[in-house]
Amino acid sequence: MNLSMIFYVLSWVLCFSGVFLTVPVITAAAYGEWDVFVVYLTTAIIYFALGFICMRRKPKEKRFYARDGYMAVAFSWFLIGFLGAVPLFMSGDIQNFIDALFESVSGFTTTGATILDDVESISRAGSLWRCFTHWVGGMGILVFAMAVFSIAGGSGIYLMRAESTGATVEKLVPKIRESAGLLYGIYTGLTVFETVLLIFGGMSFYEAITTAFSTAGTGGFSTLNSSIAGYSPFVQYVVAIFMALFGLNFNVYFCILLRKFRRALGLEECHWYVFIMAIATIIVWYDNISSFPTIEEAFRHSFFQVSSIMTTTGSLSVYTLADWGWLAKGVLVILMFIGACGGSTGGGIKISRLLILGKYCKQKVISLLHPKLVSRFKVNGSDVSRETVHGVLLYLIGYIFIFSISAFVVLLFERCDLITVFTCTASAINNVGPAFSLDGYVSSFSDFSAITKLVFVFDMIAGRLEIIPVLVMVSYLGGSVSKPFRFIYRKALLRHDEDEDKESTT
Amino acid sequence: MNLSMIFYVLSWVLCFSGVFLTVPVITAAAYGEWDVFVVYLTTAIIYFALGFICMRRKPKEKRFYARDGYMAVAFSWFLIGFLGAVPLFMSGDIQNFIDALFESVSGFTTTGATILDDVESISRAGSLWRCFTHWVGGMGILVFAMAVFSIAGGSGIYLMRAESTGATVEKLVPKIRESAGLLYGIYTGLTVFETVLLIFGGMSFYEAITTAFSTAGTGGFSTLNSSIAGYSPFVQYVVAIFMALFGLNFNVYFCILLRKFRRALGLEECHWYVFIMAIATIIVWYDNISSFPTIEEAFRHSFFQVSSIMTTTGSLSVYTLADWGWLAKGVLVILMFIGACGGSTGGGIKISRLLILGKYCKQKVISLLHPKLVSRFKVNGSDVSRETVHGVLLYLIGYIFIFSISAFVVLLFERCDLITVFTCTASAINNVGPAFSLDGYVSSFSDFSAITKLVFVFDMIAGRLEIIPVLVMVSYLGGSVSKPFRFIYRKALLRHDEDEDKESTT
Repeated sequence: MNLSMIFYVLSWVLCFSGVFLTVPVITAAAYGEWDVFVVYLTTAIIYFALGFICMRRKPKEKRFYARDGYMAVAFSWFLIGFLGAVPLFMSGDIQNFIDALFESVSGFTTTGATILDDVESISRAGSLWRCFTHWVGGMGILVFAMAVFSIAGGSGIYLMRAESTGATVEKLVPKIRESAGLLYGIYTGLTVFETVLLIFGGMSFYEAITTAFSTAGTGGFSTLNSSIAGYSPFVQYVVAIFMALFGLNFNVYFCILLRKFRRALGLEECHWYVFIMAIATIIVWYDNISSFPTIEEAFRHSFFQVSSIMTTTGSLSVYTLADWGWLAKGVLVILMFIGACGGSTGGGIKISRLLILGKYCKQKVISLLHPKLVSRFKVNGSDVSRETVHGVLLYLIGYIFIFSISAFVVLLFERCDLITVFTCTASAINNVGPAFSLDGYVSSFSDFSAITKLVFVFDMIAGRLEIIPVLVMVSYLGGSVSKPFRFIYRKALLRHDEDEDKESTT
Repeated sequence: MNLSMIFYVLSWVLCFSGVFLTVPVITAAAYGEWDVFVVYLTTAIIYFALGFICMRRKPKEKRFYARDGYMAVAFSWFLIGFLGAVPLFMSGDIQNFIDALFESVSGFTTTGATILDDVESISRAGSLWRCFTHWVGGMGILVFAMAVFSIAGGSGIYLMRAESTGATVEKLVPKIRESAGLLYGIYTGLTVFETVLLIFGGMSFYEAITTAFSTAGTGGFSTLNSSIAGYSPFVQYVVAIFMALFGLNFNVYFCILLRKFRRALGLEECHWYVFIMAIATIIVWYDNISSFPTIEEAFRHSFFQVSSIMTTTGSLSVYTLADWGWLAKGVLVILMFIGACGGSTGGGIKISRLLILGKYCKQKVISLLHPKLVSRFKVNGSDVSRETVHGVLLYLIGYIFIFSISAFVVLLFERCDLITVFTCTASAINNVGPAFSLDGYVSSFSDFSAITKLVFVFDMIAGRLEIIPVLVMVSYLGGSVSKPFRFIYRKALLRHDEDEDKESTT
């Protein structure tokens, strides 16, 4: 394990957190929130200075491997979640540090679940910071760092692979820095375009930019309690369409930039994405058609909600989902798990992974029917390697274990109904945001106990980093902790298995 | 595909169904239910005669392979589900054929979910037939056939592998027929022992034998509406303990018979089984302790319910579970998925599979941390082969897909709450029986629509056969049906993928 290099990466994260904080500093100055200004400015300076000092201790060995990439990324995300929480807590916007941590992690992981019962009561700088964390987290913190500086040289691909969403990161261009820059370019371009459209739709600049940050990262935080519900149909359509666009595989935009239109339209994953979104919209629309005054309104809210949940954004175009029918809610819960495309800013299991799993399953069954058939399959037009398949399988098993254990812990500590436990856990691990309860709808996570909130913090980061980096971290940290217990179990019950112990620890 | 051999196996199933029906025929005669007697006797004679005639067409090629085994087993189970339904429907005990089919499949798959609102209203012969199907289905129909006759010669191992529960069938003795005979010997011995204890506890012979059938198959049907709730604490403890015993890996009993006590106690899977059952009992007990008059009563019902749900039996020691807390219900729902040990009569995902998945996951994560480490692991003291791991992974993916699609269809056609949809589907695919609803407890599946019942019929068989045989069958039958659709999709959208089509169909 190249610990000095991991330390170096974390110094960069510290430094960048200081840079990111200048955005709320400027906001606080612009709105004359001087108390908040001082807090954010002090934090920004301390982070930047501390990061800068730590960074001077250059690592001897710059090269590192997949495992170092996973560890660096996992630690970075826990660190930045903590760093983002400090100003929210210090400024007095959030009274409790665990709440602030939940809010910050929910922001960076683009979950959008809030512990604030009244979002409008906090400072404008704090509110903007929440939405800005979505934007930063959407494309990845280290990807951002790499877009600006070449922090890890050629080994940066491991950082990028560990942080980027989706089963595979296609090698867009030969150099990682260019690739990261290009992704951020497309991302910024789309965000600016959405901001302009929203201003055109009647929003103020502040509202438009926060909404665009939130949509771009597929996060879901809003500066208003009513989310997007109070705005005009035009704004609602713009947000709904942009959510869907940010949930697309970014390779589509890349291909369009290169004028490879046929390849852009031919991505199998995107066909499924559009197909599932269309079917889900029709079902939800059908279930809602009698609850709204006009067919258009029913369609708009159904499409908005499907787009919002499937891309795991979690914004709302209605004031509450409590009175929606179980069919609509059920479809939305299923969409939480499916999630968006790989290589997008959205969360969930992702369609590319489901395609790989489905085709793996089909191929194995066919090979039972025709044992001599050569076994390989394609997704998005290119062969899926054995390593990718095993990565997806590891993801799936890790996902199921983390989900089950989290739900069990929440059940133990909350004593609330099964729908709340199930959908809140699903909402956290899939980075969605809203959840359903027995009575209808969970709009804020403030009532949960501290333990549950910490479980969700872990789930949100595990979900955003797509399980494997967090598994590697837990395995590394947990290996030494669990050793005595395993020793006792083996000594007491399974003496004949001692040789196995020897094998697995060497 | 050796179709003539599959046809031959199905003839045996037909023949054996006739033999099995002699049990309710005798019951009807004993209780003087002459109308019912005529129906069961006629059906028995027709099945036996038809099976005997079909069997005379001996297959030319006796050898067959894994795929033939899967197909034969899948078809056999759909066939016997149908055959078992006919007398239930013809005798007038169940008015609707789909209901009768549901009840029969629920019986053979040892699910124990009923569509009867009043179980006590049907004939005694019908009631015994329901419980007897549990006993027959628990250990496997073809395993039974092989215990009596050597129907498939040396290739019978494929039938046994496809039908037996658990990830692996250990080769107990060199010959399959002996192995099948030994399993049925242990099974019968335990059933007789339980019957004697129950009679000693005050049950009539009829009650004792039906309860023992139901417990042995981990099914859950009862001849009374109140299941085991009306009986003495002694009877409840006996049933609870025997459910737990039938959920153990039968290799334990085999090792005990061979006086290999150390090996019997050393099975890792059984440690986890006992550990999970103990923890779950404590949690449910803790959640129930204030709802019962005495601590003993709270313990008894908690242990009974945990044992009943974890072994996927589904019997009840209380009149309803509606007033149990969400913590207890949540733990029971988790137990539905975990299920019993491999190589038992219980259902669910099974602990051996979860162990393989957990160890696979751990091994993959460790190989990310230490890339040079040799990767292999043991479950129950023996190495797990790559084929077994892939079998379990295929099972898991198939399970998830079948579960999700079923839940979605039920959601579409039922418009009931998410807890009902989720737990009823879980109950069907895991062969448990009871399920929870928003109001508390689903005691009968009679209110569901015909489509939902047919979905559950499919799920119950898929769950009992542990997914893969059903996937093979669907793939074989569905391959030709879906061809035109795949052709249209490829022609319309993915012309460059034509070569892939060529590869996968050759």
